[in-house]
Amino acid sequence: MLKNIQDSPLYNMANPKSVVFFGASNNLSAMGSNILNSLIKGGFKGTIYAVNPKENEVQGFKAYKSVLDLPEVPDLAVLVVHTSIVCRTIDECGRKGVKRAVVVSAGFKEVGGDGIQLEKELVETAARYGIRILGPNCLGVANLHLRMNTTFFPLPEKAGFIGLASQSGSFVTQVFNYLEQYNLGFSTAFSVGNEANVDIVDCLEYLGACQDTKVIALYIEGIKRGRAFVETARAIVPHKPIVALYVGGSETGRKAAFSHTGSMAGPDKLYDGIFRQSGVVRAGSLVEMFDMCWTLGSSPLPAGRNLIIQTNSGGPGAAAADACGRLGLSLPSLAPDTLEKLKPYVPHTASVNNPIDLTFTRNPMDYTTVIPEILAGDSRSDILLIYFLMPYLMVIDTLKQMGLEHEKAVEEAAKLVDSQADIIARLIKTSGKPVVGFTYRKLDERSIWSLIERGVPVFPCEERTARALNALCLYRELKEKITRSPGV
Amino acid sequence: MLKNIQDSPLYNMANPKSVVFFGASNNLSAMGSNILNSLIKGGFKGTIYAVNPKENEVQGFKAYKSVLDLPEVPDLAVLVVHTSIVCRTIDECGRKGVKRAVVVSAGFKEVGGDGIQLEKELVETAARYGIRILGPNCLGVANLHLRMNTTFFPLPEKAGFIGLASQSGSFVTQVFNYLEQYNLGFSTAFSVGNEANVDIVDCLEYLGACQDTKVIALYIEGIKRGRAFVETARAIVPHKPIVALYVGGSETGRKAAFSHTGSMAGPDKLYDGIFRQSGVVRAGSLVEMFDMCWTLGSSPLPAGRNLIIQTNSGGPGAAAADACGRLGLSLPSLAPDTLEKLKPYVPHTASVNNPIDLTFTRNPMDYTTVIPEILAGDSRSDILLIYFLMPYLMVIDTLKQMGLEHEKAVEEAAKLVDSQADIIARLIKTSGKPVVGFTYRKLDERSIWSLIERGVPVFPCEERTARALNALCLYRELKEKITRSPGV
Repeated sequence: MLKNIQDSPLYNMANPKSVVFFGASNNLSAMGSNILNSLIKGGFKGTIYAVNPKENEVQGFKAYKSVLDLPEVPDLAVLVVHTSIVCRTIDECGRKGVKRAVVVSAGFKEVGGDGIQLEKELVETAARYGIRILGPNCLGVANLHLRMNTTFFPLPEKAGFIGLASQSGSFVTQVFNYLEQYNLGFSTAFSVGNEANVDIVDCLEYLGACQDTKVIALYIEGIKRGRAFVETARAIVPHKPIVALYVGGSETGRKAAFSHTGSMAGPDKLYDGIFRQSGVVRAGSLVEMFDMCWTLGSSPLPAGRNLIIQTNSGGPGAAAADACGRLGLSLPSLAPDTLEKLKPYVPHTASVNNPIDLTFTRNPMDYTTVIPEILAGDSRSDILLIYFLMPYLMVIDTLKQMGLEHEKAVEEAAKLVDSQADIIARLIKTSGKPVVGFTYRKLDERSIWSLIERGVPVFPCEERTARALNALCLYRELKEKITRSPGV
Repeated sequence: MLKNIQDSPLYNMANPKSVVFFGASNNLSAMGSNILNSLIKGGFKGTIYAVNPKENEVQGFKAYKSVLDLPEVPDLAVLVVHTSIVCRTIDECGRKGVKRAVVVSAGFKEVGGDGIQLEKELVETAARYGIRILGPNCLGVANLHLRMNTTFFPLPEKAGFIGLASQSGSFVTQVFNYLEQYNLGFSTAFSVGNEANVDIVDCLEYLGACQDTKVIALYIEGIKRGRAFVETARAIVPHKPIVALYVGGSETGRKAAFSHTGSMAGPDKLYDGIFRQSGVVRAGSLVEMFDMCWTLGSSPLPAGRNLIIQTNSGGPGAAAADACGRLGLSLPSLAPDTLEKLKPYVPHTASVNNPIDLTFTRNPMDYTTVIPEILAGDSRSDILLIYFLMPYLMVIDTLKQMGLEHEKAVEEAAKLVDSQADIIARLIKTSGKPVVGFTYRKLDERSIWSLIERGVPVFPCEERTARALNALCLYRELKEKITRSPGV
């Protein structure tokens, strides 16, 4: 494990004070221009230099004829130039003393034929000057805390706690918007491309040491340095969870991965073994990977696999119980003192089995206040899952029926759902247990979003919930195993 | 199979010309009042009578002291009264000549003890008068075409093509909003409750004959009449697909189902067998069930399991290929004439393997026009799956860079995405093949919603896409098997 994150070859890529940009012009439909535009729009705070022999100015920056003309040695070079001039440009960077480069340009190993030779030349040129390269055929870096970005799309405003290393650039830049739907975001994300002399293991090591990263996500089409991967992961897992999506295990996935990055994928079982040995939790889809990151980054670890499900609807309760049970979570009966404490709050129609089906509570507020508090305190259970139903418009309607005028009702409804969300969010801290929700309402409905904003994961599907809760249990189990016998 | 849908005991429940309502008052926080309010707000066109001995008027309707006082015999009685007076009320309805009732009231078999005896009495009372009852302990009916609704929430504006029969009332009323997110909706949905003398098989039979229903969804905690279920399903499947979610197969699901509706669930394998024999496609979650309904209700059936995936991003392509491959879908290489036709439209960086990774197209419009047209025509493939990326704001930005003012750019962008969506939607008809999309953008983004509105399913996850496509293949296979040997 890295003692000092600054020792990582990726440090100056993710945290450069100055960047020299090759391949941008004033024609914004060109890829290089688009990426420079993203960097500027995202609010990068460092110095930007543009090299373009044909222009005097590029997007408001003075255009230098050559990197050799720059007034200083920049921390990082970003290349979005034609394949044929990549090596020459890296050579010039080397002569200037630049030590880090992101090569977005494609047309190397992944296209086969001449591309393979070209990539060899690129690696040799870089080696001559001790330059570390991310790519080629990548989208580079998005560091949301420092507003550093070499991908297509401008950075979203909010940084998050997910560190990503990806063998697909799309899964960096194209999921900015996806993560925002869950109030999630990247801390730093890397697109590794062909991994010429910096690979996914280097990224893993960096993210393991990154203070802003609470959980690491990996999109993998094939791992080259298997042993280094296992060792690095095992050093990180006792401190930080790692989730991986591997797509090369099926015949169709293997072929697609090969066609995409030229990765030599291995059979599913091999990767299952590598992940288990590494303490990495495996996800089955991109959605599942980020769902797992959500619970792992926002919940305390459960002591075991015992779960209470709180609902006011039998069907959603049964569906969630079934989904959880299939993944090896258990639903114990409630402890006697829990039953005693619940008594004043449950109507005669309710079932206090597990799932608890409250049907109606005497006071609707109880559902999100005193009842979850009692249930989170149950000595037999490790996790509390709550079904959230109440449509926000009905809260407003109810307040209006109580005599409030529309505007006042809206205002009071907002206060109400916020105060309820505060209680649930606080419960995660005071109980030390995961408290997670699920719903079939839209997540951006005020009453649901209020919870999500406060760090309570609420999933839009019982199956996704079960998998994300299972990830918490799996991680705890894997972590304990590694902590007990740390050697590989 | 029903010759005439009017012969179904459910016909007058879903299509009553007049309804008598028991248990509503002017206190809208009471359940009965809430349900009557939903019925009124939803725009029910028939006659409503309210029976309430304590009021003169209920929510604007004259309150009758007794059903016997009504000026006509209503088609349907809806009961949301205290458990203790349900039998007496049914008896009065019988004396009046009412033949159909929805009993929302709970506290019968599902609570055990006295409730079991009470349900027996209810069934006997109904039998005396030949009354068919939906429930007790149910939410009854939502017929979106006739605006008939006995559930909590007002009906959404748009009817859809999904017919649902559910052993959970929540999965009727609480998913109105859920389905709207996908531009989906119910034709008619039934909550069957304790199935006193009308059961899920009766509902299945009704939905099989219902002209507005293109696909049938079933939420099942336990089937009582196994043989009747199989026979009814097998009669429907050659004409209409059936999808089922069964949650009683795991230990946790079985217990939860028993606690919910008192259903005696059976092992997973037994139900797998029943579904296979019935030609029913099994779903693993509520979300998956409705995803399957989406493709089954909007796509032609594919001739086989061969799929082309069109992307402009390697990662999403590989992830989708892997997800599809794991479910037994195949990705053949493109036919030679397809490759020939594609040539003018693909850049040198593209991969014309399958998945096709176009990276950039020379003209961005090609991606949603000529390229899918060529691919849908490929003789080796049965299904086209397209990855949709382009953020709508970037379309607007691009138009602004071309010199358009903001408002004009927004207007033109809307026209552009609509015309592209028209082409894709038309392709489903002209090619006779399923054309489906996936994306990690929000579905309500203009460029995605434009497709969805036109009947093109676009899924927010590669795994969900794969399962929904697999449902098309499974249905075709099951249907063929039954058509070949129709006997049970």
